[in-house]
Amino acid sequence: VTRVLVNGREGRAIDPMDRGLQYGDGLFETFAVQDGRARFFDWHVERLVEGGRRLALPIPDARLLRDEVADAWPRGRGVVKLILTRGIGARGYRPPAAAVPTRIVSGHEWPARDSLLWSEGVRAGLCRTRLGRNAALAGIKHLNRLEQVLARAEWDDGAMDEGLMQDDRDRLIGGTMSNVFLLLAGRWLTPVLADCGVAGIMRRAFRGWAAEQGIAVMERDIAVADLAGASAMLLTNSLIGAWPVRELAGGALPLDPLAARFNAWLAAQ
Amino acid sequence: VTRVLVNGREGRAIDPMDRGLQYGDGLFETFAVQDGRARFFDWHVERLVEGGRRLALPIPDARLLRDEVADAWPRGRGVVKLILTRGIGARGYRPPAAAVPTRIVSGHEWPARDSLLWSEGVRAGLCRTRLGRNAALAGIKHLNRLEQVLARAEWDDGAMDEGLMQDDRDRLIGGTMSNVFLLLAGRWLTPVLADCGVAGIMRRAFRGWAAEQGIAVMERDIAVADLAGASAMLLTNSLIGAWPVRELAGGALPLDPLAARFNAWLAAQ
Repeated sequence: VTRVLVNGREGRAIDPMDRGLQYGDGLFETFAVQDGRARFFDWHVERLVEGGRRLALPIPDARLLRDEVADAWPRGRGVVKLILTRGIGARGYRPPAAAVPTRIVSGHEWPARDSLLWSEGVRAGLCRTRLGRNAALAGIKHLNRLEQVLARAEWDDGAMDEGLMQDDRDRLIGGTMSNVFLLLAGRWLTPVLADCGVAGIMRRAFRGWAAEQGIAVMERDIAVADLAGASAMLLTNSLIGAWPVRELAGGALPLDPLAARFNAWLAAQ
Repeated sequence: VTRVLVNGREGRAIDPMDRGLQYGDGLFETFAVQDGRARFFDWHVERLVEGGRRLALPIPDARLLRDEVADAWPRGRGVVKLILTRGIGARGYRPPAAAVPTRIVSGHEWPARDSLLWSEGVRAGLCRTRLGRNAALAGIKHLNRLEQVLARAEWDDGAMDEGLMQDDRDRLIGGTMSNVFLLLAGRWLTPVLADCGVAGIMRRAFRGWAAEQGIAVMERDIAVADLAGASAMLLTNSLIGAWPVRELAGGALPLDPLAARFNAWLAAQ
């Protein structure tokens, strides 16, 4: 981390009574930043506003957030993470009547990753850890992430690149840190996220781009058993863009050119 | 809050990169303390150890925890909250190979509550917010508590005293901050907590005490629809002991003397 702004001031001290720590009572966003400018900034803010609506958490003005993102990573290519909590509270679950949110904006180096992940594809497998279903929390990027932590702890980097997660009804939902798209019987599909999962910004970008290419990507309930019939798969997130999957649960998958085409478009944004 | 110890040192500054804040990656316990001594301390530590086993989080030595609890509230009656996180980490869900947990021990005044809640009973009602099911996280007291926060935000203190929560299969699990016991067809029952909910220390104490009285309290799957047939109900947590319920979803419930008997026993501990 190079720089952290807490409520707009440089600093590294969070009050232990902050409800973000006490209960995971808050939201976050991870921005890909170039020269102080966040990619798809408006869409990140839209998701944050939706999260704020669900949690009854006031969201700061977008201009303030834009300025702080630029402050946290003004030059070059980097990652800015924004955490927004319900602020300091007394003991007990009840939210304060007038919450004063805590805003934490941190700048991070762009992660160094092998370019072969994009050109040759990645290895994905199914995690044992499942996602609980709760429509009230589905889609938004809240701070309750233990399921992802437990799933991500299941493998070492040497073994695979991303783990896929299912819900308790054996439905594929997404990767631990990514959304998933698969080609099934000639159609591109992505899981419905009504009950769990995060509605990724790059998921939205990929669907929008695909539609412009005349490729309809449908949201569907996808059974894990259907993965065996997939003829291609790709994974998206805000930092990686799209990764084509070359190996799924140990079996080879052909690389579809769609991921590379999307990444080329993305690089030109 | 009167005193906060962070890793044994007085202070109020948590690193914003702490995984407790970033992901709710940690556990907590709330102790009822009298003159530096926590009630049912060993059982709290047992639950913490079980949580540590599930999350692969190393738990500090019980003697250290006992000393810090006493430090945080040495005299009189108070509440000590312990938070144990996976410590500071880099960006990303993957837990550090060698995590250095953060230990936060805070002392709080005993909550001032009307004694009529014990003598005359409390009002309970059903929350709209439900609990997602995930056996990997059920029973333990982890830091992902947004469901409880949303449920607790549904009512003002004037309206009722505790909200009951159900899972997505319409099964009663517990209160937002308590466990629930009900008398159904002449038998005392409490919900199975295999898929969600917190296995409360006072729940354990109540069951143990009841067994000594010759009263078997059975764990059962309890449908919310069965609440209509309940002839008595009580709520337990580490601070309140047992509250008899006098009003359930607007309907009157007779007070059963069991809560008062248990509280009398508890006061003598």
